[in-house]
Amino acid sequence: MPRHLLGLQHWETRHIEEVMERSFFFSRFRERKLDNLRGRLVAALFFEPSTRTKFSFEVAARWLSADFYNFPVELSSVVKGETLLDTIQTLKSMGLNALIIRHSHSGLLEWLKDRVDISLINAGDGAHEHPTQALLDLFTIKNNFTSLQDLQVVMVGDIKYSRVVRSSIKGLLEMGARVKLVGPPTLLPESFREKGVEISWDLEGALPEADVVYLLRLQKERQQNGLLPSLKEYTRLYGLTENRLSLLKSGSMVMHPGPMNVGVEITSKALEKLDGDPPPGITVSIQRQVESGIIVRAALLDFLMRGDR
Amino acid sequence: MPRHLLGLQHWETRHIEEVMERSFFFSRFRERKLDNLRGRLVAALFFEPSTRTKFSFEVAARWLSADFYNFPVELSSVVKGETLLDTIQTLKSMGLNALIIRHSHSGLLEWLKDRVDISLINAGDGAHEHPTQALLDLFTIKNNFTSLQDLQVVMVGDIKYSRVVRSSIKGLLEMGARVKLVGPPTLLPESFREKGVEISWDLEGALPEADVVYLLRLQKERQQNGLLPSLKEYTRLYGLTENRLSLLKSGSMVMHPGPMNVGVEITSKALEKLDGDPPPGITVSIQRQVESGIIVRAALLDFLMRGDR
Amino acid sequence: MPRHLLGLQHWETRHIEEVMERSFFFSRFRERKLDNLRGRLVAALFFEPSTRTKFSFEVAARWLSADFYNFPVELSSVVKGETLLDTIQTLKSMGLNALIIRHSHSGLLEWLKDRVDISLINAGDGAHEHPTQALLDLFTIKNNFTSLQDLQVVMVGDIKYSRVVRSSIKGLLEMGARVKLVGPPTLLPESFREKGVEISWDLEGALPEADVVYLLRLQKERQQNGLLPSLKEYTRLYGLTENRLSLLKSGSMVMHPGPMNVGVEITSKALEKLDGDPPPGITVSIQRQVESGIIVRAALLDFLMRGDR
Repeated sequence: MPRHLLGLQHWETRHIEEVMERSFFFSRFRERKLDNLRGRLVAALFFEPSTRTKFSFEVAARWLSADFYNFPVELSSVVKGETLLDTIQTLKSMGLNALIIRHSHSGLLEWLKDRVDISLINAGDGAHEHPTQALLDLFTIKNNFTSLQDLQVVMVGDIKYSRVVRSSIKGLLEMGARVKLVGPPTLLPESFREKGVEISWDLEGALPEADVVYLLRLQKERQQNGLLPSLKEYTRLYGLTENRLSLLKSGSMVMHPGPMNVGVEITSKALEKLDGDPPPGITVSIQRQVESGIIVRAALLDFLMRGDR
Repeated sequence: MPRHLLGLQHWETRHIEEVMERSFFFSRFRERKLDNLRGRLVAALFFEPSTRTKFSFEVAARWLSADFYNFPVELSSVVKGETLLDTIQTLKSMGLNALIIRHSHSGLLEWLKDRVDISLINAGDGAHEHPTQALLDLFTIKNNFTSLQDLQVVMVGDIKYSRVVRSSIKGLLEMGARVKLVGPPTLLPESFREKGVEISWDLEGALPEADVVYLLRLQKERQQNGLLPSLKEYTRLYGLTENRLSLLKSGSMVMHPGPMNVGVEITSKALEKLDGDPPPGITVSIQRQVESGIIVRAALLDFLMRGDR
Repeated sequence: MPRHLLGLQHWETRHIEEVMERSFFFSRFRERKLDNLRGRLVAALFFEPSTRTKFSFEVAARWLSADFYNFPVELSSVVKGETLLDTIQTLKSMGLNALIIRHSHSGLLEWLKDRVDISLINAGDGAHEHPTQALLDLFTIKNNFTSLQDLQVVMVGDIKYSRVVRSSIKGLLEMGARVKLVGPPTLLPESFREKGVEISWDLEGALPEADVVYLLRLQKERQQNGLLPSLKEYTRLYGLTENRLSLLKSGSMVMHPGPMNVGVEITSKALEKLDGDPPPGITVSIQRQVESGIIVRAALLDFLMRGDR
């Protein structure tokens, strides 16, 4: 039974499945306050701002009646001679049971794990992993299609720098899905082939066979880095346009981790159509992904922390 | 059954009465934690600072066991391409049930109401409405006099820019009170006559007949605008002085929304007298208005949110 | 039955003993959420930052199901004409039951006590008192030795400016311990003799007889004030070094209020040894003091507030 979630790469398939099952269970209790983590202390320590992810964790924790604390980043700096490790040990002595960390350095949690005796949860580390996003995406897909077996998932965009992709691939493959990564060559490293996924530069070729089209969020600074000729060019080749919508097969689902760059990875016309009058049989899951985020994070906290009950 | 409180102007009299009744009910349970809103999520989004009003809402919400969130204003700015509307839709997907907003623009809530599916509560919008202040004032008066029927309420001061006045008049009139507005001509628009209230520049003429003297908070920037000759002159003509206290009839009540400008709308001597040794039969309600704020806001949250139970 | 904790100097011995007993009681319930203060409102108002102490109070209060509020310091400034006293009276009207204050001026709480009708708790006032630190130290000692009767407690370091020392001496003496203060002459006022304690400049002479060695945190600004020749010199004479560790008798305990200046009041080698492989029979209590902080503060809140149940 794992005590931490540093990345899906560290987890066995049965652990992912356990969180999925627990998520289904919790999804039937959405309206009520549950007592599962009553008396437990959960805190968030975010070195990079992300109101959305942090709030999602807080709602999840409080849903299960945990006490939730938002630590200011100053806490972690060397204050009065204390290091981050000292601080976390002090918090542990005060009763802290789990710490949710977002930090640009992917090694931090790995290093902390061997030194402090509390559950650690990775809420995004640089371009490495964002495992709760992957879990909520898996749950959203599983909830829609019942099973992931043989589903074709097409992930589109900035593969290279996406921590969502890194976390998701393992889960998707292990649950039986086929994964195709589509993007411009500069943002799509060949090395991903080794992970057992297909690679393509051709979005229009990939769309008709997709059960899930997963649009990644484009970091606009990529353009400044010279990795993209222009945002307009990116949208022309890899954006979801109204025309491309018509290539999607019935029963397919469009996903995005949010928040969207409207006009970049999706055109405003395509978004309007999806929101208002989607092509028959096409599902958009963006709001459902947000809902799944609460459910899956609650299931995860319950899964990681029930061990010390 | 209304789902929002944007302003008392949008409400029917029976809705105001319903909140009054519910407030009386809650006022008998002050010491205990109630479970009415257990599992509900309420948040405050204040674009203008008001620790006092925000805290009052928070205490009210937590009294009923709602989970309360204080959103930083940054949340609402266009972050990563998200607009305020996107943000609120995301929060709704995360489970948010009600949002309490203070914003200088009176049209914002009206615009949001048709676009998001959560309860919206106006916590003050520019010089337009501040409906929960009006409700708590109504409750304080009703609690003191049992009925508002035929009570003479005299509101004194900056009528023109007061959102409290705008919100209160409707409630007062509908519950049977008579309203007289008193202030300097520059701060007392003739147009108020159309609302069915009396208008006067003569405070000393109005005081002897008043059951309630409601002192408004003077915004000191009015003086810079040239609307007042000087604060001293204002106090001389419209401040509650020790001498004017003696004009009040027995059984009357002095109100103020707080915090007071001592030395402006009331002299320090008059305040001392009211606090320590008030004239026989005269009641000061300032602390009771604060208490009523908690009760009425709890009653309001309960009223607006029980619909989606 | 006291309603406030301004300093241990104001308390009778039986009140200290009552908090000790209640702490023992609470220490058996650490894992669960208790309902003792359900529906009570507790707030912290810290004019000087101390994340550690503030968090300790928050965890303690929420353990007993109190609603806890962190007030921003701005609240206390003169906002819109309100003074701190006005603000606290308003908070009282909103239902606040207890206020935890850290302020550099030791007279503030004394002044407030006669003016507001809520429980006040001193969380550290200048160099005067820090009574909850003293209580948690007493509890840690009592928990280790069962009784304080005839224990030799040696407090080492900056006696002059330590609010911990001021608060602790009374408690230690009244519970039967003997106290010796050790430090450089510039930081060890002769006047302490009048309090019934021994005074010495000789650490090595004091260590072999000590049951408790209490290292004080050195404020590094003392050196700038010319009260210390150098930090290195201080450590040479009054730091806990590896050699001095060997002078401690079996069964003795090393304490520190945290956070430590490693390399000043204790060398990194001595700390390593204490953490990893302490001399036989020697106990280090730093993490236990942190744990005691939660227990004792919960016991204190319960003790002070049960009166208005």
